[in-house]
Amino acid sequence: MVNFDYQTPTRLIFGRGVVAEKLASVMKNYGPRVLITYGGGSIKRSGLYDQVINILKDKEICELPGIEPNPKFNPSVLEGARICKEHNIDVILSVGGGSVLDCTKAIAGCACSDADPWDVVTMKVPTHKAIPIVDIITLAATGSEYDSGAVISRTKTNDKLAYFSKHVFPAVSFIDPTYTFTLPVKQTLAGVADCINHIMEQYFCGEHIEMNDAFMEGAIKSLMKNVRIVLREPDNYEARAEIFYATTLGCNGIYSLGNSESGWPMHSIEHALSGHYDITHGEGLAIVTPRWMRHILSDRTMERFVAFGTGVFGIDSSLPEREIAERAIQAIHNFYKEIGIPMTLREVGIDDSRIKEMAHHIAVNEGLENAWAPLYEDDIEAILRDCL
Amino acid sequence: MVNFDYQTPTRLIFGRGVVAEKLASVMKNYGPRVLITYGGGSIKRSGLYDQVINILKDKEICELPGIEPNPKFNPSVLEGARICKEHNIDVILSVGGGSVLDCTKAIAGCACSDADPWDVVTMKVPTHKAIPIVDIITLAATGSEYDSGAVISRTKTNDKLAYFSKHVFPAVSFIDPTYTFTLPVKQTLAGVADCINHIMEQYFCGEHIEMNDAFMEGAIKSLMKNVRIVLREPDNYEARAEIFYATTLGCNGIYSLGNSESGWPMHSIEHALSGHYDITHGEGLAIVTPRWMRHILSDRTMERFVAFGTGVFGIDSSLPEREIAERAIQAIHNFYKEIGIPMTLREVGIDDSRIKEMAHHIAVNEGLENAWAPLYEDDIEAILRDCL
Repeated sequence: MVNFDYQTPTRLIFGRGVVAEKLASVMKNYGPRVLITYGGGSIKRSGLYDQVINILKDKEICELPGIEPNPKFNPSVLEGARICKEHNIDVILSVGGGSVLDCTKAIAGCACSDADPWDVVTMKVPTHKAIPIVDIITLAATGSEYDSGAVISRTKTNDKLAYFSKHVFPAVSFIDPTYTFTLPVKQTLAGVADCINHIMEQYFCGEHIEMNDAFMEGAIKSLMKNVRIVLREPDNYEARAEIFYATTLGCNGIYSLGNSESGWPMHSIEHALSGHYDITHGEGLAIVTPRWMRHILSDRTMERFVAFGTGVFGIDSSLPEREIAERAIQAIHNFYKEIGIPMTLREVGIDDSRIKEMAHHIAVNEGLENAWAPLYEDDIEAILRDCL
Repeated sequence: MVNFDYQTPTRLIFGRGVVAEKLASVMKNYGPRVLITYGGGSIKRSGLYDQVINILKDKEICELPGIEPNPKFNPSVLEGARICKEHNIDVILSVGGGSVLDCTKAIAGCACSDADPWDVVTMKVPTHKAIPIVDIITLAATGSEYDSGAVISRTKTNDKLAYFSKHVFPAVSFIDPTYTFTLPVKQTLAGVADCINHIMEQYFCGEHIEMNDAFMEGAIKSLMKNVRIVLREPDNYEARAEIFYATTLGCNGIYSLGNSESGWPMHSIEHALSGHYDITHGEGLAIVTPRWMRHILSDRTMERFVAFGTGVFGIDSSLPEREIAERAIQAIHNFYKEIGIPMTLREVGIDDSRIKEMAHHIAVNEGLENAWAPLYEDDIEAILRDCL
């Protein structure tokens, strides 16, 4: 077991009706000036926007609408930070999915710094303070509601970068699984794929502990079972709640305390895909997953594949190890295909024209030569070509 | 899934050598006046006391030694609170096991209140503030290092009561599994039994979620496997670390977020045993566990027994349900016996003379008629007699 230093101070308020029940009392803990951040308007159609405005009727409200999927440094982060400074905002209320919340985290950090915002987001300048964040998370996917990270894109450089600061943990996250009843199927699936991948990034590593294996295998099995249920019954509360709970824990490290670092290679590869093509993150991850697995399978990595295959898919442990591994790779591919995720890059509009460019970008920027299963430019290019 | 409102702000610093590495920098965040609380002197024999004093050489130190197992309201809590008030203590550093830390939590709360300390500990008067707590936890057992609860005994009334306040979460917990290398076998076993029981109290409930089942079953399996290893190799780091990690998460609720409340009946029963006889908590729990299970086994509770038997002990799921349940009860009994825990009350010095008195005390004070599997005075007496 490797040493760890872990803290997640976020308060999780989870369940049916929690916004009506507790948002007012939570917001009383902050000053009157609130910035509400949100995305493309689905919260207006669902009535959530009106509910929130009504609960906050005694506050002074600014708004930042229109935050993009794969949220952009310019304009969203810059504009949000400008509003916070100009209006001396006391607290930011993020209402939406992980993209809105990620953007909000970058805003919260940039708003408390006199440095160039790009230097804050790229962590050249450390974040010493941030505006407190409360969020209502409407999408079960990224786990941003329970971690201190944000992924921010800058279009002009095709960058998609991770920003981290302990100061941007949400103070309080409201999670009501009923908000996901009406999600488009595509988003439900991408969220589940995102979470399965978060767990796999933590599972495939050098040193690992027994309890975590059981926890992560249980979470993946729960996600697979419950996503099949919600495809048939989109408003099945128990299934939606199990999925949301699994995704919430996805990125704060609790699944893998004491495990060694894997380097999160699939995310590194996918970030280049969605950085260059703006595809849906969860779909990109699903496409990369089985190809990455096949590429890194070796005697050295075999133990993880056998554990994964027997623990998640119940593959007969008496089979030869390589067969268990091959079956596990095929099983995860088949699962994604069965639930309806496009499993090739061509299906999401990516051809081979920029493969070399992306492989180079990843090799230069992501440090995957230091990952648990090291990847060099040739490896990355081969994986991307397998994804076509 | 039931709604939940969860927050554990404690920072966990876990691993080999973490006190030398980080205690000094953590303590810099607090003022100069430190109260060090500890127990019977094992930290002096091990050298930990000297190490801590050396790290804190620039601080103004008060000490409260001699905190008892099953820590006592009088004198320990009263004396600690008096010292804090008199010396205007900035931070309390608890060095020892769960009893020292529980006592420290009660001290931290009482020291910030003008009310009668007994009213604070019994929560007649709410705790609005507490002195910050940092702890070095030397025993893998209660999980007090990651929760906001404390169990305090008052000898004159045979009371053993739970005190809770969100203000007494430790700010930082240092957990170095090497401290447990030299524990007496009895304490290692009692700690493991305590933790298994914490998990079972959360597992045997009405509503439960799939991921939690996997997490808890994995934790119990890890504890059973690793305690067998440390009985042979007391200084096996990996095994000690797995045990400590499982116990740390025991009582803060993470194992069972979204599960319904069970009422923690085995703890309620055991608290009367150790309240009346001062036996070792973990041993008392181990003795009560299979008897409680047998008593509450019914068609209504059957599903949990089947899940537990197949998930933890790998009992063949094609057997009749009642047989799986009976085998599971026998298996947990056999496991405790195999590792060397005394499995009858007589072995720990308790005869039948006060059974009726204890059953009455529990029935009146513990509210077990509202537990998931309701227990009345007759039930409790029957369970206690089975334990003889």
